[in-house]
Amino acid sequence: MSHTHPATLAQQARNAQRVLGSCSGDTRSRVLRRLSALLAEQKGALIEANELDLRAARSAGLAPALLSRLALKEDKIATLIQGVDELAAQSDPLGRILRNTELDEGLELRQTTSALGVLLIIFESRPDAVIQIGSLALRSGNAVLLKGGSEAAHSNAALINCLRAALEAEGLPADAVIGIAGREAIAELLHHDDLIDLVIPRGSGKLVRSIQDSTRIPVLGHAEGICHTYIDAAADPSMARRLVIDGKCDYPSACNATETILVHEDFLPELKALGISLEEHRVQLIADHRSKEHLGSASAARDEDWSTEYGDLRLSVRVVCSIDEAIDHIHRYGSGHTEVIVTDDTTQAERFLSEVDAASVFHNASSRFADGYRYGLGAEVGISTGRIHARGPVGVEGLLTTRWLLRGRGQGAADYGKGKRSFRHRPLPLDEE
Amino acid sequence: MSHTHPATLAQQARNAQRVLGSCSGDTRSRVLRRLSALLAEQKGALIEANELDLRAARSAGLAPALLSRLALKEDKIATLIQGVDELAAQSDPLGRILRNTELDEGLELRQTTSALGVLLIIFESRPDAVIQIGSLALRSGNAVLLKGGSEAAHSNAALINCLRAALEAEGLPADAVIGIAGREAIAELLHHDDLIDLVIPRGSGKLVRSIQDSTRIPVLGHAEGICHTYIDAAADPSMARRLVIDGKCDYPSACNATETILVHEDFLPELKALGISLEEHRVQLIADHRSKEHLGSASAARDEDWSTEYGDLRLSVRVVCSIDEAIDHIHRYGSGHTEVIVTDDTTQAERFLSEVDAASVFHNASSRFADGYRYGLGAEVGISTGRIHARGPVGVEGLLTTRWLLRGRGQGAADYGKGKRSFRHRPLPLDEE
Repeated sequence: MSHTHPATLAQQARNAQRVLGSCSGDTRSRVLRRLSALLAEQKGALIEANELDLRAARSAGLAPALLSRLALKEDKIATLIQGVDELAAQSDPLGRILRNTELDEGLELRQTTSALGVLLIIFESRPDAVIQIGSLALRSGNAVLLKGGSEAAHSNAALINCLRAALEAEGLPADAVIGIAGREAIAELLHHDDLIDLVIPRGSGKLVRSIQDSTRIPVLGHAEGICHTYIDAAADPSMARRLVIDGKCDYPSACNATETILVHEDFLPELKALGISLEEHRVQLIADHRSKEHLGSASAARDEDWSTEYGDLRLSVRVVCSIDEAIDHIHRYGSGHTEVIVTDDTTQAERFLSEVDAASVFHNASSRFADGYRYGLGAEVGISTGRIHARGPVGVEGLLTTRWLLRGRGQGAADYGKGKRSFRHRPLPLDEE
Repeated sequence: MSHTHPATLAQQARNAQRVLGSCSGDTRSRVLRRLSALLAEQKGALIEANELDLRAARSAGLAPALLSRLALKEDKIATLIQGVDELAAQSDPLGRILRNTELDEGLELRQTTSALGVLLIIFESRPDAVIQIGSLALRSGNAVLLKGGSEAAHSNAALINCLRAALEAEGLPADAVIGIAGREAIAELLHHDDLIDLVIPRGSGKLVRSIQDSTRIPVLGHAEGICHTYIDAAADPSMARRLVIDGKCDYPSACNATETILVHEDFLPELKALGISLEEHRVQLIADHRSKEHLGSASAARDEDWSTEYGDLRLSVRVVCSIDEAIDHIHRYGSGHTEVIVTDDTTQAERFLSEVDAASVFHNASSRFADGYRYGLGAEVGISTGRIHARGPVGVEGLLTTRWLLRGRGQGAADYGKGKRSFRHRPLPLDEE
């Protein structure tokens, strides 16, 4: 953490990024291996720093769930080291050739991947995020400004120092990773779309929305996760029960938890049994007029229920007459996060997969699968409900942009046109020579 | 054009887009072929509508250059028809599989391309933009709200009617293309990030900046094009002359025109001859202290010259002691659009290509090549100097996003974890079964 002016820090990060983003992939791998070694060496000191935060949090009366998020024990550090080692071994995401075209003889154009630039990451409690995001940024050649919660100040500072030391040990500028302290600094940084290329707020929907409202910098994240599971007329009742219980109960506060089930009217004879199973899992049902008849202890849904992310064991239920009505409801009230159809009718399933406008659309699988690790993306930057740049669970690809590199022999644009030279536009292989 | 409330129009476009974006690629091809036929059939009526605009523009005393942009004659219509035919013949950009993974037995995840949604396009004078952008939007399954200049009102309305008629003739909702009239309507629409997914302003940097400042909706475009040509110590003098003249003079008001040349001090003995050539091309030189000695009639550069997009035949000149100083200058004053190095030294060239942080970076080619047509992208949506989503010249890819489609057999997330099932994450081939 530093008392330098925030914009100056961002400029330092910008300058450092230009070095980090244009060094070799091997160099970035070496930085990651250094980081892994440092985390192992300094394990004791990291746990001590974390103890300071934990002690303060306990005396401030933090809830047990928050204390466990804040804690950085040996097993968490081991997991972090393993993640960093995996990133170090991965092939470099920068400089990949996405498009290779011979525009004309001796005039070759390549579109290649490159780092985005400077990222501002705002996160709450969990200090492990420093290493997870910091190492992902190093792998992808980006600089990061990291703003964690004040309750984790000692832990975060110790972890940020490991990242900076790893950079310096390989002759790279430490300022590719900078810790930011204080809300005023964030407010100031959010004005600098000239210095910061992407903001990633990891936290509550409220945090995400307040940041989106106060900056012109693109924001990657999701304000809300209002996910539906539609139980079709041709749904297998036991599969429907399993998927709704997993979607709601596996981790109710997650953004990919199911908040509403839409039940086809032909499924109504099965609804009573489903309701009993859900109540056995302590799910509190909030039902529309038609479904309420089948759900003994359910309370009555109000219109705002359809657009509420409960984040707990409440679940709203609505009866629909057709798949069209289900899709209309999803488009009207959903947040474009994850939508599920349960059915044995593949025609209906394919219609749902084709027509539903959301980041993730599932057939016969729990909404809880919408997650970068489960999708096999490796480290996850976040889940985006925006449509621009990245959508759904975002891995390292979300931290990349492209550059167009043209190699010529002195050609001018005026050499081409009617009665002059014309372009070939011949595709070339994508693998490096 | 319509007097319905702008937000209602945007909602109509959203609803229409959901139909357009999920119909088959063949259907969208048929709409484009209808459009092509309609443009041919209604050529006379289109030219008549354009005559109304031209007459009003002439009596308002519009400049000849603007009149020629406004004019829609037989040859322009023929070019538009050819463009639409090419798009109709192209393979569909939607539903392409970008990633295909077996998460586990019977649990398959695909990332596929899909339309972005609703685009708001704001353009000036040229009515051909209606068809160029409208047809690109139809090809990619997007709905468009089109706001043209009032001086082209009759022409734009006639062309928008062709687009809407082509949609209706294939049983698709005409509201996938809607004309918008009036600045108040735009101001209103810019508040609706819930209804509009991307704004593409095609016009002056001033227009782009004013829109960026007044909306949370992502904006695709470039506010400025401050492009540099760096003449290295090892530059061939005749190639340097050719590239600077092409970069500056081929089309001085284009965003990819060269605004500043950075000259390595070892090249100074050649600068006088370069200056004479430029003056023969009526280029007005604005020089720093060191270069001015070699450039007889140049005026003295002030600091603001380095960040000015002249858009005319003015060119600023600065001497640098090294490639590092050139790159620093580019990062400090450039707009990240297009940067050129002229050199016969491939080591220096590769350093420049690797280190310069801009959308397009060229070796021994004119800055004027930064253009979607020249890059072989087909139709161009615009040129982006943002790093998010699309960078540099943007073709149809800039109008796409992705969806994640998961097909399962009733799996829940709680089935996986320590002591339970584990993920396979096996890559599957990308071609459709």
